[in-house]
Amino acid sequence: MGLMSLDFSMSCPLPIHRYPHVLLAHGGGGSLMQSLISELFLKAFNNPVLAQGHDAARLSIPSGKIAFTTDSYVIRPLFFPGGDIGSLAVHGTVNDLAMSGARPLYISAGFIIEEGLEMETLWQIALSMRKAADASGVLIATGDTKVVDKGKGDGVFINTAGIGVLEHDRLISPSQIKPGDKVIVSGDVGRHGIAIMAVRSGLEFETKIESDSAPVASVALSLLSSGVDAKCMRDITRGGLASVLNELAVSAGVSIEVNECDIPVREDVAAACELLGFDPLYVACEGRFAAFVSPASVDEALRILGPEARCIGEVREKDSVPVSLRSRIGTRRVLALLSGEQLPRIC
Amino acid sequence: MGLMSLDFSMSCPLPIHRYPHVLLAHGGGGSLMQSLISELFLKAFNNPVLAQGHDAARLSIPSGKIAFTTDSYVIRPLFFPGGDIGSLAVHGTVNDLAMSGARPLYISAGFIIEEGLEMETLWQIALSMRKAADASGVLIATGDTKVVDKGKGDGVFINTAGIGVLEHDRLISPSQIKPGDKVIVSGDVGRHGIAIMAVRSGLEFETKIESDSAPVASVALSLLSSGVDAKCMRDITRGGLASVLNELAVSAGVSIEVNECDIPVREDVAAACELLGFDPLYVACEGRFAAFVSPASVDEALRILGPEARCIGEVREKDSVPVSLRSRIGTRRVLALLSGEQLPRIC
Repeated sequence: MGLMSLDFSMSCPLPIHRYPHVLLAHGGGGSLMQSLISELFLKAFNNPVLAQGHDAARLSIPSGKIAFTTDSYVIRPLFFPGGDIGSLAVHGTVNDLAMSGARPLYISAGFIIEEGLEMETLWQIALSMRKAADASGVLIATGDTKVVDKGKGDGVFINTAGIGVLEHDRLISPSQIKPGDKVIVSGDVGRHGIAIMAVRSGLEFETKIESDSAPVASVALSLLSSGVDAKCMRDITRGGLASVLNELAVSAGVSIEVNECDIPVREDVAAACELLGFDPLYVACEGRFAAFVSPASVDEALRILGPEARCIGEVREKDSVPVSLRSRIGTRRVLALLSGEQLPRIC
Repeated sequence: MGLMSLDFSMSCPLPIHRYPHVLLAHGGGGSLMQSLISELFLKAFNNPVLAQGHDAARLSIPSGKIAFTTDSYVIRPLFFPGGDIGSLAVHGTVNDLAMSGARPLYISAGFIIEEGLEMETLWQIALSMRKAADASGVLIATGDTKVVDKGKGDGVFINTAGIGVLEHDRLISPSQIKPGDKVIVSGDVGRHGIAIMAVRSGLEFETKIESDSAPVASVALSLLSSGVDAKCMRDITRGGLASVLNELAVSAGVSIEVNECDIPVREDVAAACELLGFDPLYVACEGRFAAFVSPASVDEALRILGPEARCIGEVREKDSVPVSLRSRIGTRRVLALLSGEQLPRIC
């Protein structure tokens, strides 16, 4: 991919340190913005596409079928156990592409910075984006910097859009989900949200709970290339597993039943949820996804996804309840779509 | 492009009116976010790609060579004479694509909304985006909504990323600019910035100054298809004409000399600049671009660009001054790159 090497222990470049904080003028199109871009962003992201230095990047893609997605990231705090807004902004968009069956190739990076942000903070975030992009196999191909007055933003917001290439003709989409399909989750759920909440509320647990934020493109694409009959995949983010299942049940015109005892929730996450009054099935992940596969493909899918993946339920003909949960004691309850998120600004 | 018709006089849909203001929960991944997306954004944007309802849009593009760009928009106020943040967010990104010689096809729309924004305001902005997208020949293919707490944003920020297709093998880039090339501007400069400033400062002029915000893709692509020997094009935004020329002179390793008397500035804009203490050459446009063409192509370029375009100067061998201005009285002065923008948050 033409990546250039980078020393990740490098500290914020000197010319930028003359300005230890971001000024409004750093977004003004003049020499300060030029130096912010060339000294900070280009040094961190450092690849031949960005080095073209034009407003739009020229890219070659190996086929005429692509996937295109965007997400903005407004998470508080900017740094959290297991990640930061930079790595999250790369993983989230890469994962959205992979969920449509595309191989992520390029992302854009749009920064909306609040005047006064420490330059060192921005540098650490940019380094983290580069590291996450390298690990995810994508290039940061184009970018933009805006600065808003102090009190009109919150540190930094990041938007990433992503382009992936569809290397196969399979349609991976909610419309492909049919009664009888099995529901798999790729790992334990609720960890990202609880990691953020623990920081915000200053809680200390016996073991530190780290976000699950990670790129899932590689394993998701392995599912497809291995011949697993995957109908649909969806990453589990805002609203958690329960919200994703509700969205997909409605889109696909089916009902879904899942078994509580099969849904992997780590013990420390379950304990924190108890303490904070959250239902882990509604708490965000950032490195987990749900896959809908035909019954014959379940074993192969679980083998590829690894030891943390579980088959948690199945798709039924549509009835009055989109998603229901079979509890540990055998009762069935509705897993409704909540009106909002239990934890705002989780991504 | 599969556009569906829309009544632009339609008011904000009823289900959304139950919530006259945006709540934090509208960004939470639950039922309120679903209804904001389906009732407001999908109604306004309304096209078959968005209707796929997946996290990433699947797109067919007619060639394997594309351009990719992104910009965030943080303009204050949200509505101004001649446009609003929605139309600006479409024009800006479409224009960036066109400047690289690409035909704009698809854009993404990422909204960062401050809790408490009037739903009707958001609806008007979305309608304006749709109208601008129709006029620019692009589809809004994918989107994202985030809500931040009151006091942590400023009404709404919008990011758009864009994909265009390169239908030719010509490299339109700063690297192509050579001594002897002529510099053309596509119309009068400085109008966007002054229109914004007039609103902010409550100034009334005899004639209302409207922003020049507009898509320039169609005329820019006509230049290329007509056989004009265009080396580079760059839209004139933050920092105005002077900043664009400085950026390009440095990228291309040349010097540029322009003639003050050839640069088109409307009389009312010049008068307002006098009054406000601005230099119109540093004031942003949002529907103007600079084109560098070979001398033999100047007449044809001016014919295609229309009666407001002017040839304003030429490219020289690199000397100690990147950009200089030959004044009305024949003296030569440096047109330096300023440190920031005279008018913050202009786009």
